[in-house]
Amino acid sequence: MTAAALEETDVAGAVPGDVPSGDVAGEVRRLALSAKEAGRVLARASGDARNTALREAAGVIRAREAELLAANAKDVAFGREKGLSAAMIDRLTLTPDRIEAMARGLEDVAALPDPIGTVLAEWDRPNGLKFQRVRVPLGVIGIIYESRPNVTADAGGLCLKSGNAAVLRGGSESVHSSGMIGDCLRQGLVAAGLPGDCLQIIRTRDRAAVGAMLQASGLIDIIVPRGGRSLIERVMADSRIPIIAHLEGICHIYVDRAADPDMAREITVNAKMRRTGICGAAETLLIDKTVAAAQLPGIVDALAEKGCELRGDAAAQGIDARIGAANEADWDTEYLDAIISVKVVDGVDDAVAHINRHGSEHTDSIVTDDLNAAETFLADVDSAIVMHNASTQFADGGEFGMGAEIGISTGKLHARGPVGAEKLTTYKYVVRGAGQVRP
Amino acid sequence: MTAAALEETDVAGAVPGDVPSGDVAGEVRRLALSAKEAGRVLARASGDARNTALREAAGVIRAREAELLAANAKDVAFGREKGLSAAMIDRLTLTPDRIEAMARGLEDVAALPDPIGTVLAEWDRPNGLKFQRVRVPLGVIGIIYESRPNVTADAGGLCLKSGNAAVLRGGSESVHSSGMIGDCLRQGLVAAGLPGDCLQIIRTRDRAAVGAMLQASGLIDIIVPRGGRSLIERVMADSRIPIIAHLEGICHIYVDRAADPDMAREITVNAKMRRTGICGAAETLLIDKTVAAAQLPGIVDALAEKGCELRGDAAAQGIDARIGAANEADWDTEYLDAIISVKVVDGVDDAVAHINRHGSEHTDSIVTDDLNAAETFLADVDSAIVMHNASTQFADGGEFGMGAEIGISTGKLHARGPVGAEKLTTYKYVVRGAGQVRP
Repeated sequence: MTAAALEETDVAGAVPGDVPSGDVAGEVRRLALSAKEAGRVLARASGDARNTALREAAGVIRAREAELLAANAKDVAFGREKGLSAAMIDRLTLTPDRIEAMARGLEDVAALPDPIGTVLAEWDRPNGLKFQRVRVPLGVIGIIYESRPNVTADAGGLCLKSGNAAVLRGGSESVHSSGMIGDCLRQGLVAAGLPGDCLQIIRTRDRAAVGAMLQASGLIDIIVPRGGRSLIERVMADSRIPIIAHLEGICHIYVDRAADPDMAREITVNAKMRRTGICGAAETLLIDKTVAAAQLPGIVDALAEKGCELRGDAAAQGIDARIGAANEADWDTEYLDAIISVKVVDGVDDAVAHINRHGSEHTDSIVTDDLNAAETFLADVDSAIVMHNASTQFADGGEFGMGAEIGISTGKLHARGPVGAEKLTTYKYVVRGAGQVRP
Repeated sequence: MTAAALEETDVAGAVPGDVPSGDVAGEVRRLALSAKEAGRVLARASGDARNTALREAAGVIRAREAELLAANAKDVAFGREKGLSAAMIDRLTLTPDRIEAMARGLEDVAALPDPIGTVLAEWDRPNGLKFQRVRVPLGVIGIIYESRPNVTADAGGLCLKSGNAAVLRGGSESVHSSGMIGDCLRQGLVAAGLPGDCLQIIRTRDRAAVGAMLQASGLIDIIVPRGGRSLIERVMADSRIPIIAHLEGICHIYVDRAADPDMAREITVNAKMRRTGICGAAETLLIDKTVAAAQLPGIVDALAEKGCELRGDAAAQGIDARIGAANEADWDTEYLDAIISVKVVDGVDDAVAHINRHGSEHTDSIVTDDLNAAETFLADVDSAIVMHNASTQFADGGEFGMGAEIGISTGKLHARGPVGAEKLTTYKYVVRGAGQVRP
């Protein structure tokens, strides 16, 4: 299949015309294989060369601003025709500011420390063998994302920083924008003397491409899906390749009996309402029964003022009439909206038990002045991020000081929490001898 | 299903009698859930308590030697009735020495450093938030193994050391021995004040138990299969849970043009013939074309003397008539036997290309006095373990100084190479604030 044929396929269906749809899988495998081969060169390249590629790509993005805007205009027109919501059109749209932000983002990633080549451990054995554990790239990272085309630069840049080749498949609406951003990254690689094939964009709207990526084990080492729940669920169900992702962020604030009332109110409002659509937004407020009557009304005031709906258990409803009834499903719901569930609990152990049962192992926070209660919570809540006296909305690689993240993982294997460049690596053991054989 | 019902099931088939076979899955889930709940207690326990449990278990194993031998005799009788080979019967058999080795192994694991609770990184942000990355257990580890019953103690002990609960499913022939070893470990836990349910043995011969483990996502965090290729393939195909394993070990020795001939011969013979049935045994010899004529006959002498069959490409056959013909499949074959394939290559880059194409990313070694060639090989071969002037048979956690391993991983995610206690962990981010909300 030619690149042109890939571009002209339709949203919903298979590849039209004379190209059998089976070719989408073949084309994806071909791109992944060329990424794998080019990735071997990238893995051996110096950190300087990889950083040069990122800076060159930033320059190309700035220089090609007008072309990027024109390509994006095609995507936006397609999106309007398809009837996307205003919010979706906004996510799809590139502006000069957003283009500059992509370029600056690549320069920021270039300035991060090089994760590759670090000697993680080093030791000798009595037989004279010298051991090193050395950080190396994973290989090929497959990224599947939805409408925001700038993910192409953010995620692609982080892969190249960490010495990995990348195969990117953006949302079907952003195929022209993502394709051109990918071209800019490839130009940056070539300008740095590296193979452009390290970065491959799948330029088809055919959804079979996602399935083909998920089956490309042996070519793609890890899949990072970024998007809504239905995308992540599909990827988790179908992938033959390990995934780094979070399915949902059911984050909790627990207001302990020793919480400062003002802090509890401010953290709860921020954790719920600063932005309701992000994975670090709180979905459930737990409050200790000994302070619920005194503190809950003030928290409800502040949340209601921001337009937040409250759904509580009987005890919470009994304290404040503005709290509606929660049903069992509410404790397991990620609203991603101006809604919060409220439950009165019996101390920190009860809060921990609720979180470990209903949470999603993402981010949970205790508000308390009691250090013992805080340490119990931090130790016993089985989540990627546990917090004391801070808003769950800090669950973000940038806020962690990582500079950039490819996503947040709620899995326990390999990477947990915000996933920066360092976690897009593995290691190898290097053993140096002088002819040792094993007795 | 009662424990008795589980014990009395037959090798091949479903659970007999009044227990519907569907109950095997239910029973496995029940055991996994109780392991998960008990594991929360174990995760909070001190390293001292975990080490006490291991030492107590060692004492129980010694004290119950006669019972262990009696239980094992039942398994051996069953194995003979089933017509197991002499080698399989040997693997299945416990002796006083092997029982003592299990006990000592648990004491050795107890003496290892505690991997849990280590602060892996620690930093502050300008807003005053204090970040820590802290090592924590994975949760519940599922281990599926074949006939050697002592894996129950080795693998179970390593899980407990690293604060993990474990669900173990041994070979169907070793159900009595494994069950009783498991009881000893549970007694050790209880003696240390920890819940015995941290260690669960699946005491059925019904193979549906394996399928049920592989589907128990949410209860079991990671699956470690230990056994032959058919077991690993089945687990890889069916598991909904991440796996740590190696499918095969197609290990290479590359004799470079700058190899010392004596060293090349000794390393090759050791790598191939010390033990032919282990994953670190070499399966292919690559030799540089400039030294093949001079060095290959001496290597063939030494291998043939040990009873090794050789299968080579045309160039190798042309040098030594004792080398038979290799076909394309030989380069991809793990013989696990006294057979080696031999190929003449054109320098280190050609050797690397062959290994990256035909190897299994396990362990590969270069023999050379040329440090540049060595560094090229060590950097470019994409395997878990790369060696210079040493035998591939050193691919073993004990030889690495890890004290014990649960297996060797050829995956790139989470754990690579020998997997010791430290790699049976994950981490969590602990964030301590003073009321910070995100702007």
